[in-house]
Amino acid sequence: MMHIDGETRIVAILGDPIAQAKSPQLFNACFQRDGVNATLVPFHVPAAHLGPVLEGLRGIVNLAGVVVTVPHKLQATVHAARLSEAAQQTGGVNCLRREADGSWTGAMFDGEGFVKGLPGRGHGVRGKSALIVGTGGAGVAVAHALIDAGIASLDLFDSNATSLRRLAQALQKRGSGVVVRESVPRAQACHDLVVNATPCGMRPGDPLPIDLADAGPHAVIADLIMKPAQTRLLEEAEARGLTTHPGRHLLENSVEAMVAFLRLLPPSRERATTACQAWIESA
Amino acid sequence: MMHIDGETRIVAILGDPIAQAKSPQLFNACFQRDGVNATLVPFHVPAAHLGPVLEGLRGIVNLAGVVVTVPHKLQATVHAARLSEAAQQTGGVNCLRREADGSWTGAMFDGEGFVKGLPGRGHGVRGKSALIVGTGGAGVAVAHALIDAGIASLDLFDSNATSLRRLAQALQKRGSGVVVRESVPRAQACHDLVVNATPCGMRPGDPLPIDLADAGPHAVIADLIMKPAQTRLLEEAEARGLTTHPGRHLLENSVEAMVAFLRLLPPSRERATTACQAWIESA
Repeated sequence: MMHIDGETRIVAILGDPIAQAKSPQLFNACFQRDGVNATLVPFHVPAAHLGPVLEGLRGIVNLAGVVVTVPHKLQATVHAARLSEAAQQTGGVNCLRREADGSWTGAMFDGEGFVKGLPGRGHGVRGKSALIVGTGGAGVAVAHALIDAGIASLDLFDSNATSLRRLAQALQKRGSGVVVRESVPRAQACHDLVVNATPCGMRPGDPLPIDLADAGPHAVIADLIMKPAQTRLLEEAEARGLTTHPGRHLLENSVEAMVAFLRLLPPSRERATTACQAWIESA
Repeated sequence: MMHIDGETRIVAILGDPIAQAKSPQLFNACFQRDGVNATLVPFHVPAAHLGPVLEGLRGIVNLAGVVVTVPHKLQATVHAARLSEAAQQTGGVNCLRREADGSWTGAMFDGEGFVKGLPGRGHGVRGKSALIVGTGGAGVAVAHALIDAGIASLDLFDSNATSLRRLAQALQKRGSGVVVRESVPRAQACHDLVVNATPCGMRPGDPLPIDLADAGPHAVIADLIMKPAQTRLLEEAEARGLTTHPGRHLLENSVEAMVAFLRLLPPSRERATTACQAWIESA
């Protein structure tokens, strides 16, 4: 049973909009099951207020940190005194930890969360070929994490040519040996994994962000959008008999990493990990 | 069962320390029973950070407001664009409502909460005589509220002569006809009500703030301290066979007023009032 008292440590998720966020349920379920006296609450913060809000939250001693979501992931980096490697690669953060001196340490778990979720559902990454459509914060994070996990080739597309070029060049600079190409928003037979990293599909009338007509039968079609759970792209993939991978897996697989980063695991880390994973598996 | 999702409205209680606060339990029990999707969380805010914290919280759209506790009740008034009458009288606020434009409206329910709690426990106020020891924010609030409720005479004491004089003069200026006197920290036979409004009693080694040797057998000895629930003063009063009135009644009786002020009552106000009161009675 959830409980908040004067000793409860606080995590907030900052976004605009925020009503659709699933982080409160995911984090609070983990805190409850692990007996950690902490709670995550939603903060609806318009972009114009992000600076003062983050400046003010630095003064709250029992605030463990904040989860950062759309549209703040890039701008929030400005307020971090330190950035994790993934945050530096992506130029964005999805988590800020409040240090004892009131400064923020920024980290980015989106890519890691997404990629961790793939083998969990039986989809290998090493040596495979992927198409990522959308090279904003989410696309950048997923691209870097796929390279970290051993993907062999990455095709990229974004309607914003500057954003597309920037990511392609950044990935090539990593010198990982991965084949990186600027491409088109159309799945090809060679793609083992097709990822929608655009916001296209959040609204009912949105067009399909990716043409699936030429997708191979082995392709896994993934969408990073969490609401709606079943996007038009995923419906289209199912209609074509393709395997789908909805956006909630990203969040589920990054919750545990964020809880650890925020130093909110219980004394026995193993126990927490087990309970969180069991819960995530059963969800 | 308590539940937080992306649509939950937030209230925070700001104080230093905050671990002892009972507001989370009291407010959240009311929200739950009334089916209001809101939650109150504790924010540990040192005095030096109050300004930036309040400035930042203005940017959180789903923040209904904040409850303000020690040591911020006076300083928080500086940030309010508007103040209720009780807040103006006391120079302090215990609640700030966030308006749609991001400004704060301040109100003070401490005095009203304390005084409302007296008849609820069978203790009348009209025409009675009271001693208040401690003329800081709490003492000021209780003094004004006792006058509003028809007390006949008020004896006041504070070891800070300036604070004592200021309250005595402010009460005399109200021209209510109440007899206001500067006194000593010693109950007299004439006192129907004796109130400790100092922080003396919060720590184990604290001396007795009021000498009860001469208290009459009809005297009600009240302490505004909430933790510990049973202060040394209340123990001493019980040992002398006197009636006691612990600090939690103040908070219990102001919760409903604050929930209404924060516009977090459910559509049917009557239903909420009834449920909250039933809960408070059974607590």
